[in-house]
Amino acid sequence: MNFEVPVAVTEIAAIIGAALEGNSSLMATGINEIHKVRAGDISFVDFEKYYDKALNSAATIIIINKKVACPEGKALLVTDDPFSAYVSLVKRYRPFEPAAKPISDSAVIGEGTVVQPNVFIGNHVRIGNNCIIHPNVTIYDHCVIGNNVIIHAGTVIGADAFYFKKRKERAVMYDKLESCGRVLIEDDVEIGAGCTIDKGVSGDTIIGQGTKLDNMIHIGHGTVIGRNCLFAAQVGIGGKALIEDNVILWGQVGVSKDLVIGKDAIVYAQSGVPASLEGGKTYFGSPAEESRAKMKEINWIKRIPEMWEKLTNK
Amino acid sequence: MNFEVPVAVTEIAAIIGAALEGNSSLMATGINEIHKVRAGDISFVDFEKYYDKALNSAATIIIINKKVACPEGKALLVTDDPFSAYVSLVKRYRPFEPAAKPISDSAVIGEGTVVQPNVFIGNHVRIGNNCIIHPNVTIYDHCVIGNNVIIHAGTVIGADAFYFKKRKERAVMYDKLESCGRVLIEDDVEIGAGCTIDKGVSGDTIIGQGTKLDNMIHIGHGTVIGRNCLFAAQVGIGGKALIEDNVILWGQVGVSKDLVIGKDAIVYAQSGVPASLEGGKTYFGSPAEESRAKMKEINWIKRIPEMWEKLTNK
Amino acid sequence: MNFEVPVAVTEIAAIIGAALEGNSSLMATGINEIHKVRAGDISFVDFEKYYDKALNSAATIIIINKKVACPEGKALLVTDDPFSAYVSLVKRYRPFEPAAKPISDSAVIGEGTVVQPNVFIGNHVRIGNNCIIHPNVTIYDHCVIGNNVIIHAGTVIGADAFYFKKRKERAVMYDKLESCGRVLIEDDVEIGAGCTIDKGVSGDTIIGQGTKLDNMIHIGHGTVIGRNCLFAAQVGIGGKALIEDNVILWGQVGVSKDLVIGKDAIVYAQSGVPASLEGGKTYFGSPAEESRAKMKEINWIKRIPEMWEKLTNK
Repeated sequence: MNFEVPVAVTEIAAIIGAALEGNSSLMATGINEIHKVRAGDISFVDFEKYYDKALNSAATIIIINKKVACPEGKALLVTDDPFSAYVSLVKRYRPFEPAAKPISDSAVIGEGTVVQPNVFIGNHVRIGNNCIIHPNVTIYDHCVIGNNVIIHAGTVIGADAFYFKKRKERAVMYDKLESCGRVLIEDDVEIGAGCTIDKGVSGDTIIGQGTKLDNMIHIGHGTVIGRNCLFAAQVGIGGKALIEDNVILWGQVGVSKDLVIGKDAIVYAQSGVPASLEGGKTYFGSPAEESRAKMKEINWIKRIPEMWEKLTNK
Repeated sequence: MNFEVPVAVTEIAAIIGAALEGNSSLMATGINEIHKVRAGDISFVDFEKYYDKALNSAATIIIINKKVACPEGKALLVTDDPFSAYVSLVKRYRPFEPAAKPISDSAVIGEGTVVQPNVFIGNHVRIGNNCIIHPNVTIYDHCVIGNNVIIHAGTVIGADAFYFKKRKERAVMYDKLESCGRVLIEDDVEIGAGCTIDKGVSGDTIIGQGTKLDNMIHIGHGTVIGRNCLFAAQVGIGGKALIEDNVILWGQVGVSKDLVIGKDAIVYAQSGVPASLEGGKTYFGSPAEESRAKMKEINWIKRIPEMWEKLTNK
Repeated sequence: MNFEVPVAVTEIAAIIGAALEGNSSLMATGINEIHKVRAGDISFVDFEKYYDKALNSAATIIIINKKVACPEGKALLVTDDPFSAYVSLVKRYRPFEPAAKPISDSAVIGEGTVVQPNVFIGNHVRIGNNCIIHPNVTIYDHCVIGNNVIIHAGTVIGADAFYFKKRKERAVMYDKLESCGRVLIEDDVEIGAGCTIDKGVSGDTIIGQGTKLDNMIHIGHGTVIGRNCLFAAQVGIGGKALIEDNVILWGQVGVSKDLVIGKDAIVYAQSGVPASLEGGKTYFGSPAEESRAKMKEINWIKRIPEMWEKLTNK
């Protein structure tokens, strides 16, 4: 997420009550979780084992829970609870804006686009030309939808990331990482009824051009889907996955977070994908394996009684 | 889908720019995909291997991509791209009609039926007597609902079929087969919250009398479900399946397209049904097998370590 | 469900046309299915094998289909069809009240709570302070929501229990058990988009404090979920399950009805839980087993071809 105008690091330090180390003349241009940072960004780290990754990332300003050597040209903001400090910045610079009406005046809707009754379109949403948004669809604030997009009834675009920090010492154990990302839906996408596509924590969830989703598909926060993919009904994909072009997922496939499914891969129905899959191949099973090997395995299992007999009749 | 009034085949030929072969005095009475054709229908075929099937089908008028011998009493419409020609006819004779209001004036709603707030009821919808349509339900144009039907909140009846033609040569790879079918829900059906029941491509998706669906169930285009079936939550069924009377599907079962599940079959939770199942039996597993055999198999797997020991200790 | 004011057992007998046996001066204070009864309740039993359980339950008034000895201090209401008698009482004392408007005048909404557009809030609903109810959410009558609760778009709280009685002799085979329970959502809960949480048949479905649900999660009637649980997308849980504190269910897990998952249990993605699980352990598979044992089993299966070779090469 980028700020509308850059903010002085001294101002950020004052807002979150942090000690400022390093370059105190820096201007912050945005805020991002560590996986998505660019130069000018504020990010945070609260585990020592991730300090190096954070300090060496593209982030210019790092909220951290211990005073360490500040890398050249960067600034550190030292505070006891970097997570809460980060969340407070998200809430300040991308506050939740309750809707005054079902279709926000700040939304921009292109020519030839049909918005059916009972649709909600949030603040700062942009929708391109010649789209159809069917009834009872919800589009949260800041989402961006291209041209020739069809979204079927009841689908939800841009709900919050499911992302919590565990606080073992507290009675209410999970602290929410407020999300400030968006959903971007490219041209020529069709999304079925009853789908949910979450916004990124700080970056964008993307559905690539020409991709078609059937009904009741869940896409987690920050996941990026390529062009011309085809997902059948009830597929679920976790957060920050990368699904390359032309991937086909059949019904009820589940895909874990933080992985890559390579171009042209096909995954058969009800498979579970716990880790990255190479492109150009066909997979089956939970956990998913190459489908031919899996089919052989299924046949081998059928031969266990025969083996038992061989073994005991000798 | 039937036309409101029959259309001369010569007019159809002119609309799609096709060469007319055979009987030029025919009147077309409707338009259907090849799986659903009746006498008087227009259909299409674009692969040589399906030519015979199409030419010998009940369809009276066939859009085809090569000049072949025209069967007696029929007409051929020869054009380079029968798929696009067919889609253009669907769009012309069953155009998408944007809604002027949440409940269309052309909808007919029976006596004693309660429609709760925030419901969308499209054009030409018919709903019988003594139904309850709960909030935020969407019923697309042309769907037909019987008497004593309960539809719970957020359910979507009649979204488009998930049906695309692959165009390898194009950057945007999938061409949509516009659907002109309907959903028919018979008397005494109850449908849970958050379900999606797609319309048929050209015929009807049918939910038979007395059938009860739990929440978040997906029913694909053109699927026909018999009487008194019971489906638990999160079941998904692909397109053009036939589920006979009294079938029970437990939670999260997935059923592939184009198959038959016979009368009185029971399928246990999370099973995957890739092919037709005989009626009167109980199934489990993904892929599903008779449950007793599957349970035995699960037990055999547990004995592999024992077999290994037997094998290596000799 | 409790009555607003107690009702004389003689009045109940007259309403359902039952013969009254035992203490005719009793006052009924509520109506409950047998699993949830408290002193003062009316309940019903219609199978001889459950007579003892019903007669010895906390219920004070039992609708029964045969004259038997009435326990001291109780009353029996003898009628041919106790199920239908019970349902008629539910319909009389908790009738379906069609909504006059999207947000009922009888609903109580706390300070600082934001209700976004297109939300439905039914009769007698109570919502606490500082909640966010996102667009197109449906909250059925009588549900109760605590403080600091977030409910994402399209979610349905309080739809009817999926609970039917089979009537083999009838053409329309399933009789609905009308539900009169509620959903209680405790403080600090977050519920994702497109979830469905059914009301209890007569008691409450409960989501415990601090629990977080991702998108498209189904929770069946009367299920009780503890504190600080974390469920990933597309999880489904049947009716009357008890999920204790801190349980983590990963994506697409299915949990059967009438079971207990113990405190701190973790169940990996796509697992199926057919029976109770001890707390503090990690599970995987369908049916679910301890994950380490399941992983070993998966490895053993891979060795079947090696065993076959050993067996046949000797």
